[in-house]
Amino acid sequence: MRILVLGGDGYLGWPTALHLSRRGHDVGVVDNFARRGYDLEMGVDSLVPITQLQQRVKRWEDVSGLRVEPYVGDLCDAAFVYRLVAEFRPEAIVHFAEQRSAPYSMIDRHHAVYTQTNNVVGNLNLLYAIAEIDPSIHLVKLGTMGEYGTPNIDIEEGFIEITHRGRTDVLPYPKQPGSFYHLSKVHDSANIMFACRIWGLRSTDLNQGIVYGQETDETVLHPELATRFDYDGVFGTVLNRFCVQAVVGHPLTVYGKGGQTRGMLDIRDTLACVELAITNPAEEGEYRVFNQFTESFSVAELAEMVAAAFPGRVTVANIDDNPRVEKEEHYYRAAHTKLLDLGLVPHLLSGSTISSLLAVADRHRDRVDPAAIEATVQWRKTASSLATAGLVAESR
Amino acid sequence: MRILVLGGDGYLGWPTALHLSRRGHDVGVVDNFARRGYDLEMGVDSLVPITQLQQRVKRWEDVSGLRVEPYVGDLCDAAFVYRLVAEFRPEAIVHFAEQRSAPYSMIDRHHAVYTQTNNVVGNLNLLYAIAEIDPSIHLVKLGTMGEYGTPNIDIEEGFIEITHRGRTDVLPYPKQPGSFYHLSKVHDSANIMFACRIWGLRSTDLNQGIVYGQETDETVLHPELATRFDYDGVFGTVLNRFCVQAVVGHPLTVYGKGGQTRGMLDIRDTLACVELAITNPAEEGEYRVFNQFTESFSVAELAEMVAAAFPGRVTVANIDDNPRVEKEEHYYRAAHTKLLDLGLVPHLLSGSTISSLLAVADRHRDRVDPAAIEATVQWRKTASSLATAGLVAESR
Repeated sequence: MRILVLGGDGYLGWPTALHLSRRGHDVGVVDNFARRGYDLEMGVDSLVPITQLQQRVKRWEDVSGLRVEPYVGDLCDAAFVYRLVAEFRPEAIVHFAEQRSAPYSMIDRHHAVYTQTNNVVGNLNLLYAIAEIDPSIHLVKLGTMGEYGTPNIDIEEGFIEITHRGRTDVLPYPKQPGSFYHLSKVHDSANIMFACRIWGLRSTDLNQGIVYGQETDETVLHPELATRFDYDGVFGTVLNRFCVQAVVGHPLTVYGKGGQTRGMLDIRDTLACVELAITNPAEEGEYRVFNQFTESFSVAELAEMVAAAFPGRVTVANIDDNPRVEKEEHYYRAAHTKLLDLGLVPHLLSGSTISSLLAVADRHRDRVDPAAIEATVQWRKTASSLATAGLVAESR
Repeated sequence: MRILVLGGDGYLGWPTALHLSRRGHDVGVVDNFARRGYDLEMGVDSLVPITQLQQRVKRWEDVSGLRVEPYVGDLCDAAFVYRLVAEFRPEAIVHFAEQRSAPYSMIDRHHAVYTQTNNVVGNLNLLYAIAEIDPSIHLVKLGTMGEYGTPNIDIEEGFIEITHRGRTDVLPYPKQPGSFYHLSKVHDSANIMFACRIWGLRSTDLNQGIVYGQETDETVLHPELATRFDYDGVFGTVLNRFCVQAVVGHPLTVYGKGGQTRGMLDIRDTLACVELAITNPAEEGEYRVFNQFTESFSVAELAEMVAAAFPGRVTVANIDDNPRVEKEEHYYRAAHTKLLDLGLVPHLLSGSTISSLLAVADRHRDRVDPAAIEATVQWRKTASSLATAGLVAESR
C-alpha cells in the first residue's frame, strides 16, 4: 500500500515508517521538524543521538535497499497538505504530526494556544484534503488514552451504550482530558467523527497509552537509524524517564502518591497496531476507536519494577507537590480488545524489557543533563519558568 | 456589578448590554465588528437597519442617561484581552464574541478553520487573562444546545449519571455536534471545564437554544437602538426567517421532512437568563451548564404556526435535498430546569409573538433581498458557492 507517515521524523513516526517500509509498503515521511525545534527551545536533547531526516532516509536505503520518500512541510499550511496528498496519492495516512506533550501545552498561554491551533488546524486541513482529493483514503490518527481521563466506570473503546430514563443509545464515550494537549486530541476526535459522518471518510482513532522502549527491529540495524529517546521533564514519558534516572543515580520522580494508573505499551506494539489498523481499514463513513495499549500500571508499580533491577541502589522520591492536577488514587479499567481481535500479539512489560531499556540509557549516560530531569511545568500556574512569553511566536 | 459584554455589537450582545445597563450594572461592550464583516463578505444585510456602535452607545446615553463603554478589539489578540480585563476590572464577563453560524462554518475549509481558530483561541485567551488577572471573575459563556445533537435518550444539563458494568459516575454529557461551528462550542466547553478544574475559575456555560424575536424593552426605546435581524440563508435562524419569507410571499423553506426538533427561546428570555446567571454566580472552581431554552418545536410546527397567521396565503416548500446532514425525525427531550429554578419566567411562543415578529418583518419588507433567502451551503460538499477560497484570509 501507499502510506504517508505524518510526523515521520519523530519518536514513533520514524520507526513506524521503517516498519511499514520493511513490510513492503510504499512509504512517504512528512515532517516540519517542530519536535527538533522544541529541543532547541528548551535546551534539551534526545538521550540517543539521532541523525537528520535526509541522512536517516539514505542510511535506510543503504541498509535495506528500500526507499522512504521525505517531504518537508507543515500541516497548518493547507496548500502543502493538498499538494502532498494529490502528488503522493496515499491509500492510508498515519497522522503522528501533532505537538504531543502535556507539560509543553501547559507552559503558558502561548504554548496552550500553539498546541491547540497546531493540532486542530493541521488535522482539519488534512480532513478537507482527504475529502476533496480522495475520500477513500484511510486516516489512521494518533489519539491518546488520556482523552478519557480517569472516570469511576470502565472505559470503553470510543463509544458507550447508555440507558437513561428508560431509553438506550450508543454515544461517544464522555471525555475528561487532563491538559490543553489532551484537550486538543479530544477536539480532533470530535472533528474527525463529524467528517466521517458528513463526507463518508474512513478513519481509525488510535487512543494510545504511554509508550516505552526505544529499539525496534528496524532501528537496531544501524546506529544512524535510531529513534529519539526523551527523558526530560517535558517530553520524557514515565518509564523511559525512570530508566534514565536509575542509571544516573537520580531518585525516581513519582508525582504524589503514585497511584495514577495508565495504559501502556511497548514501542514495537505501536508499530504493530498501526500496521493492523492500516491492513484492516475502517469502512467508508466509519469512525472507529481502538484503545491502543496492552497493560495498565500505576506509577508506583513502574518505579518498583525499575528499582528491582538495581536492588538497594535506587531511591523513589515522592514529589508531594504534584505538578499536575490529577487523581493520585482512582479506579482504572479500560477495554482494549479490538487490536487483539485483529491479531496483536503484545510485547508485555518484563524484567528483560526494562533491562534492555536500562542498557540503552546506560550506553548514553554521559549525555544525560541532570537539570533536564526536573518537572518544571506546574498545572496550577499559568506560566512556568520555561515560558518565553513573547519570544515564541504563536504561529510557529 | 461591573460586566463586560463580549460581542456586544451583535444580535444578542447589544440588547443584553442595554438590558444589563438599565438594570443598574456598569457595562462595557467589546467587539471587533466581525459580524458586520460577514455581511460585507456575503453581500447581505440586517433586515432592520442598525447604527454603528459608537452611535448606538451615544443614543443609549441620550435615551436612558446611562453609559455603556465601548471597546474595539479582537479576542484573538491576547494583549488586547489582557489590557481589557486589567483596565475594566469586571466582576462578570458575558462571552457572545464567537462566529455563531453553522452554515458559515461549513462554507469551505477556510471558514471551518477560521471558525474553530477564532472561537477556540479567543476563548483560551480569555481563560488565561481571567486566571492571571482575577480568577474570581465569573465567565458566562454562550454555548449551544446544538452541542448535544439529537441522542435517543433525554438530554441533561451538561452532565449525566451513568451506571455501567455495576459502577456509577457523573460524567460530561456526550456531545454529537452537527457542524464545525457547533464543534467549536464543544471544544470551548471542554477547555472551560478544564480551566475551572485546574485554576479554580468559575463559569456558567449557557447551552442556548435557537433564539427568535428582535425587539426588547430597551431596543424599542429608539429606532437607533435596534438590534440586527438576519433572514439570510447563512445567519438567519429558523423562525425569524419564516416570518420574513411569509411577509414577502416566499415559500417557507423546510429542510427535508421538518421533523427536526430544537429547543427555542424568545430574545427577551436570553437577556433574562444571562442576568440570572450573573446575579447567581457559579462557585469558585465550578463549571456549570444551563440549558437555555424554554420550549421545543419541530421545524414543521414552526412553519404551521407562521402559516396560520396568513391563512391560505403561505405555502411550505419541503426541500427534499436537505443541505444539512441531520436526522429529520428523531426523539428529543431536553432538561431545562436550572434557569427556571433561578426564577426565569419565560415568554412562551404565541400567536401574538409571531404577529409582532411579522410586523417587524413587514415594516422593513422593502429591504428584503430574495436572493439572500436561499440556503447555499451544503454540508455534504466541502466548498459552497459562497467560498471565496484564497480571498478570505484565515487570520481575519
